[in-house]
Amino acid sequence: MKKTILIIITLCFIVTGYSQKINKEDSIAIKSIYNIALQDGASYDWLDYLSNSIGSRLSGSLGAELAVTYTEDQLDELGLDKVWLQSVMVPKWTRGVAEFSYIETSPGVTSTTNVCALGGSVATPYGGLKAEVVEVTSFEELEVLGREKIEGKIVFYNRPMQSDLIQTFKAYGGSVDQRYSGAEKAAKYGAVGVVVRSMNLRMDDFPHTGVMSYGDIPANLHIPACAISTNGANYLSATLKLQPDLLFYFNQNCRTHSDVQSYNVIGEIIGSEYPNKYIVVGGHLDSWDLGDGSHDDGAGCVQSMEVLRILKKMNYKPKHTIRVVLFMNEENGLRGGKKYASEAERKNEDHIFALESDSGGFTPRGFSFDIDDKNFELVKSWKPLFEPYLLNYFEKGGSGADIGPLKKEGIILAGLRPDSQRYFDYHHAANDTFDAINKRELELGAAAMTSLVYLFDKYLR
Amino acid sequence: MKKTILIIITLCFIVTGYSQKINKEDSIAIKSIYNIALQDGASYDWLDYLSNSIGSRLSGSLGAELAVTYTEDQLDELGLDKVWLQSVMVPKWTRGVAEFSYIETSPGVTSTTNVCALGGSVATPYGGLKAEVVEVTSFEELEVLGREKIEGKIVFYNRPMQSDLIQTFKAYGGSVDQRYSGAEKAAKYGAVGVVVRSMNLRMDDFPHTGVMSYGDIPANLHIPACAISTNGANYLSATLKLQPDLLFYFNQNCRTHSDVQSYNVIGEIIGSEYPNKYIVVGGHLDSWDLGDGSHDDGAGCVQSMEVLRILKKMNYKPKHTIRVVLFMNEENGLRGGKKYASEAERKNEDHIFALESDSGGFTPRGFSFDIDDKNFELVKSWKPLFEPYLLNYFEKGGSGADIGPLKKEGIILAGLRPDSQRYFDYHHAANDTFDAINKRELELGAAAMTSLVYLFDKYLR
Repeated sequence: MKKTILIIITLCFIVTGYSQKINKEDSIAIKSIYNIALQDGASYDWLDYLSNSIGSRLSGSLGAELAVTYTEDQLDELGLDKVWLQSVMVPKWTRGVAEFSYIETSPGVTSTTNVCALGGSVATPYGGLKAEVVEVTSFEELEVLGREKIEGKIVFYNRPMQSDLIQTFKAYGGSVDQRYSGAEKAAKYGAVGVVVRSMNLRMDDFPHTGVMSYGDIPANLHIPACAISTNGANYLSATLKLQPDLLFYFNQNCRTHSDVQSYNVIGEIIGSEYPNKYIVVGGHLDSWDLGDGSHDDGAGCVQSMEVLRILKKMNYKPKHTIRVVLFMNEENGLRGGKKYASEAERKNEDHIFALESDSGGFTPRGFSFDIDDKNFELVKSWKPLFEPYLLNYFEKGGSGADIGPLKKEGIILAGLRPDSQRYFDYHHAANDTFDAINKRELELGAAAMTSLVYLFDKYLR
Repeated sequence: MKKTILIIITLCFIVTGYSQKINKEDSIAIKSIYNIALQDGASYDWLDYLSNSIGSRLSGSLGAELAVTYTEDQLDELGLDKVWLQSVMVPKWTRGVAEFSYIETSPGVTSTTNVCALGGSVATPYGGLKAEVVEVTSFEELEVLGREKIEGKIVFYNRPMQSDLIQTFKAYGGSVDQRYSGAEKAAKYGAVGVVVRSMNLRMDDFPHTGVMSYGDIPANLHIPACAISTNGANYLSATLKLQPDLLFYFNQNCRTHSDVQSYNVIGEIIGSEYPNKYIVVGGHLDSWDLGDGSHDDGAGCVQSMEVLRILKKMNYKPKHTIRVVLFMNEENGLRGGKKYASEAERKNEDHIFALESDSGGFTPRGFSFDIDDKNFELVKSWKPLFEPYLLNYFEKGGSGADIGPLKKEGIILAGLRPDSQRYFDYHHAANDTFDAINKRELELGAAAMTSLVYLFDKYLR
């Protein structure tokens, strides 16, 4: 028994030896990162401006343009080694006047519901669209119903996000096919329109927009698609049970324009030892148009800017070149992410690590990593450094949409993982606004990101 | 090397053997606890009623009385084995009409500030109190200043909560002496009143109340004490620098009445094997009077009620008697907690475990335990069961004020530890209201508590 204990102690010593070594200097550095973020942070004020003075930033909008100029100016003021705009053509879709919809249970007897056009949808015919409704919860049900029961009708997708899943992004992933491909699938059976239950775990009156696609079906089959609030979805479903032949009306005059010029905003501190090896930290500057995009993804942008500001403030000289990239057009095209990756490829820039924050400005819980096993062991050896900051989620998993195109042999991708319980209350809806941001939670995320970037810069070869 | 690996594997097997054993059945039970809490929970509706139909519940108030009746009725409906009220005399303090205060920089030139009386404070003299201000950040400074510089003046305590502390309760603990003992200390130097910077990490306009004490100083030295909002504190401090002889005015007509009758609300499921061994889960039913006490501690009450409801719903037959206790008067006297413990002592009730939720209804992160080392090993062996629910904070530490008096040899005390970053934005202020509650976060807390109670009931002897 004694021998066993001795062996355990010895083993522990070996295993934690590395952590012990990095602990001293690194824990001091991380403490000072957190002190700057929490006592003298800039992220909250930046986000205040982005959200309250600029507002929503849908690709191709005036807001997006103003956000490019503002963030470039702010990065300029940080005294980075280089700040520039990387041009990228982006899609432009506009919502037009506010949507209007109602349930008609008999001629003239109507109840208004809250809907919004899905991003990329076509408009309804002039004067709106009114038709009977077929409620389904999956694409398989469409097939069972067949053209006979669907043709000429509006398909109502009403499969809720699964509330018993603890990780809300999994619940989102399990429902978002209805929003993304619902119109494409329903059109094939002759549906004239699509109403989708909002991707929201909460019961409220906000419709949540988000990107949809018609896939490769011909343009004459493009039918209008809207989201309905969760309360509205429950009401429509309940009313359908009482009166299956009710009519649903909606009117939206959104449209897709020609692509327009936009930009990724980039700033960098040049590495002292490996100037041609790059570490990227970023979020996306565009947002949906209903709220002001404070959580999605204004938070990720200002946190990423804050990483470089804190490193400068600490007078830290990175070994690798550290870039902040504010990507344009994550929401409806990912053009910014693709452009950045293709330019990196073209210029033969060796990217070794990229970190994205695009899950809201909530209390950070840790990170997920797209990483090989060997490097994951290195990363996990840093966990004790993060424990005082209550970060303990270090798992393999996805990173971020914008940095995804950078993926290839030899790069590690990571995503900040904040508490996600409230995220889908706001996601893509009119209530994703600055008042839903907590300053400390935002700053803790920025500090967590800075600490991780610091460690990768120091220890990754 | 191979031998070492083999030994590691063997050790892991031994260490995790226990977890593996409990995992199967227990992980199924915990999954079903979470399913009930998230898909068919009652806590949010209960809290809606407590907060929006009853409102604030300061000890001795009508709200507290109504809350006793309401929660007793709700527990009655759960079909527990026994529900009853335990009488307890509580202090009664009333705020009176809204406080009023201003900074006067020259006769007639005033700026209004936001203050509220501290709980237990005396009123200002009729017509209010106006005096010069001495700003300090510690009791030591009072001593340095001495009676000469303090007598006849208002002492302004302005030491902020420390924003770089990650655990906000530590920041609270580091500042709350100003609120609790500020008047007692200042009165000894002849101060005529006290203004305390609100215990709030955020800059806003809400004054935060909370209990204060005059210690054992004679009644003629009891000076009025109020809290000022963080924005107000910064403004007062900045103005003092410009004009040290400014006058501060405040008017409050709060008063302390005779003790009144109130109750702890108790319900129980009688244990099948050890009916005379008790497990307690609870929160406090009283609140401060400014908001509606949704986070402090309506959340803890409805979560505790939900524990018993879920166990009933699962048809779980506990081995030990499981009690929910909604304690009265945590905020300004702890009479309910003391009464419950003394009755338990008197009746020789063997309490083996008590769990309190009194840190807000935010996403749970884990628990802190007041526990001996042996039992702590048992508890830590349960950690893998909680990991799928993103609970990983299992540390030794405090439990809860109300269950504190139960402490003696042989009982384990624990506290639910939710994310605390936003807690002090609301704590004891007018914005501690139902809209600041997120349904999922509240429910996740109730599920975490139920799971822990289930495990203690099953494994503790």
